[in-house]
Amino acid sequence: MYSHKLLKPDGRHLKLYSRYPIDSKIAAVSPSNEPVQANPHLRWHPLRGEWVAYASHRQARTFMPPPEYNPLAPTSNPTFPTELPNGRYDVAVFDNRFPSLTLAAHNPPQSIVETLPAHGACEVVVFTQDPQASLGSLELDHLDLLLQVWGDRTRILGENSQIQYVLPFENKGVEVGVTLHHPHGQIYAYPFIPPVPAQMLEMQGRFYAEHQRGLLQDLIQKEIADNQRIIYQDEAAIAFVPVCARYPYEVWIAPIQPVATFCDLSAVQRSCLAKALKTVTLKYDGLWQRPFPYLMAWFQAPTDGAAHPEAHLHAQFYPPYRTSDRLKYLAGTELAAGMFANDALPEEKAKELQAVVISSELVDMT
Amino acid sequence: MYSHKLLKPDGRHLKLYSRYPIDSKIAAVSPSNEPVQANPHLRWHPLRGEWVAYASHRQARTFMPPPEYNPLAPTSNPTFPTELPNGRYDVAVFDNRFPSLTLAAHNPPQSIVETLPAHGACEVVVFTQDPQASLGSLELDHLDLLLQVWGDRTRILGENSQIQYVLPFENKGVEVGVTLHHPHGQIYAYPFIPPVPAQMLEMQGRFYAEHQRGLLQDLIQKEIADNQRIIYQDEAAIAFVPVCARYPYEVWIAPIQPVATFCDLSAVQRSCLAKALKTVTLKYDGLWQRPFPYLMAWFQAPTDGAAHPEAHLHAQFYPPYRTSDRLKYLAGTELAAGMFANDALPEEKAKELQAVVISSELVDMT
Repeated sequence: MYSHKLLKPDGRHLKLYSRYPIDSKIAAVSPSNEPVQANPHLRWHPLRGEWVAYASHRQARTFMPPPEYNPLAPTSNPTFPTELPNGRYDVAVFDNRFPSLTLAAHNPPQSIVETLPAHGACEVVVFTQDPQASLGSLELDHLDLLLQVWGDRTRILGENSQIQYVLPFENKGVEVGVTLHHPHGQIYAYPFIPPVPAQMLEMQGRFYAEHQRGLLQDLIQKEIADNQRIIYQDEAAIAFVPVCARYPYEVWIAPIQPVATFCDLSAVQRSCLAKALKTVTLKYDGLWQRPFPYLMAWFQAPTDGAAHPEAHLHAQFYPPYRTSDRLKYLAGTELAAGMFANDALPEEKAKELQAVVISSELVDMT
Repeated sequence: MYSHKLLKPDGRHLKLYSRYPIDSKIAAVSPSNEPVQANPHLRWHPLRGEWVAYASHRQARTFMPPPEYNPLAPTSNPTFPTELPNGRYDVAVFDNRFPSLTLAAHNPPQSIVETLPAHGACEVVVFTQDPQASLGSLELDHLDLLLQVWGDRTRILGENSQIQYVLPFENKGVEVGVTLHHPHGQIYAYPFIPPVPAQMLEMQGRFYAEHQRGLLQDLIQKEIADNQRIIYQDEAAIAFVPVCARYPYEVWIAPIQPVATFCDLSAVQRSCLAKALKTVTLKYDGLWQRPFPYLMAWFQAPTDGAAHPEAHLHAQFYPPYRTSDRLKYLAGTELAAGMFANDALPEEKAKELQAVVISSELVDMT
């Protein structure tokens, strides 16, 4: 992996990553040279026992780009610089201009509940220079690089003592609110272990204490033995519709043997995860022969300095559709009670995905 | 409150409620006479430590009603009976034909995770016979009746030893997935205390143990003293944008003095809550001069037989809009991490709602 660290004119960080050497003369650009002055804060939600982030710093900008302007494409018209420079590289990571969390946060307002500066980081990860690509269309060694990039970000962000948890995710499709179609994801780095990973780590920790092995590792072994919901499997990685799917087309991807974070993946595990990732996203897009929207989140061990033998790096995909023309809305029982009601059986949805044929030239399934 | 219990031809229960005596000759109807054979089951989600409900019993029906057919209106064409009979009554409650939870659930499938019959109840609550009405347009004594109906359902469902928690809610608007515009809500009765209420009761319980008073009661006193985010207040009820709002236009409604459930409301508290409920929903609809979508959920004490001095009946409204033309999508940080990021300050959104003028003939604000 080659990389090149840069500073944007507005003070934000940019790092380019590539499978090939990067020209050291590439310089950072930004749509605006005004310094970023985001100052989000956290408020304590006493009833839920969790933090809520407030970022009300989005100011009107005079920036008026041409209609074809894509802020995540390499800059082609120097009058309207994008977020990324021209030049050869595969993946780029930069600070979000409108972060909900930033290490620069300071002086939170006083309130009737506890407040804190919203320390942390919000990064944008541009997966490729090709605006028409998707994770499924990228080459396997490009996906392998992306897994290394997520590892590099986890390591760098996690080294900051204020950051306790690093979550890479991708929101994909207008159905999940994404209007920018250039392939990209985000990374949120939190100053605490957020509620959902905290709850999963709690369950994993209890299981580990009792059995001296991983809860997800155990579930994966049971999924393999049950052999009903597996979408992809090779010597080191697996993808499956989990037996307890909350979304009809939910899929999880994991290394079969637990690793705590992206940083701990072996080259073989990374290469196998790349194949699993490509297979799942190709099958999603192949299901209805159109781009398939989803939220993809990668859960890993906290970066709190403690050992986390209970953690097991894995991705969870939450697609918003329940059939080709019906969305699954989260409503009363899901949002207010926290109990998901799924009108599809995971076994049936797994069969649909299993039946999607993808070219073996694209992914060598051996 | 007058009420009249009936049994539908397909075996489902129906109960009519009214401010006036109900004709005892009214008989129940149903769109279909086939017995309901729903058999949902629960699966344990080991990583999240929660139950997921699976209800895959929706079968294709041959029923082909006319285009103007509204299943929640009183039956006008006997060839196409709706869910409700003709006659004078205000509110009707019946068993959902496609329940995610039912006391009739039996023989759950074996699986690699623990499974259970999805015991419980899913009820539909039709708020009025008028398909054009909304909570804001109903008379105050009609809303008072609705609060009594929620109390009656809480008592009746809660008496069943298999039911631990009763959650009335309303999903309103196509934006939250509702295609049936006749004013109605739902009640889910769970065989366990679901994760979100459980977490809130845990926080409330800790506070109560330390302070011998309620956590929400304490927050309400602080909201009153801070006097920035209050939308409605009278001698017994209050509505406010909570200081820790997760949704831009989130509003909570509560009796100022805690009561555990709807059954414990005094007549004065009920009457004041009706005014608060009418005011909030009128202000919502007045904000952009169009029907305002939301999820409204009423949280109360569990029906597990234990005393719950920490509980405090209240409603939380989660509207999906962040501005008049932009939805707030729940994505990576909300759904995967559980940390909400709100780009509006609760103080600002409260000001917008405070500024909406509603006719004082509609609600006496004294």
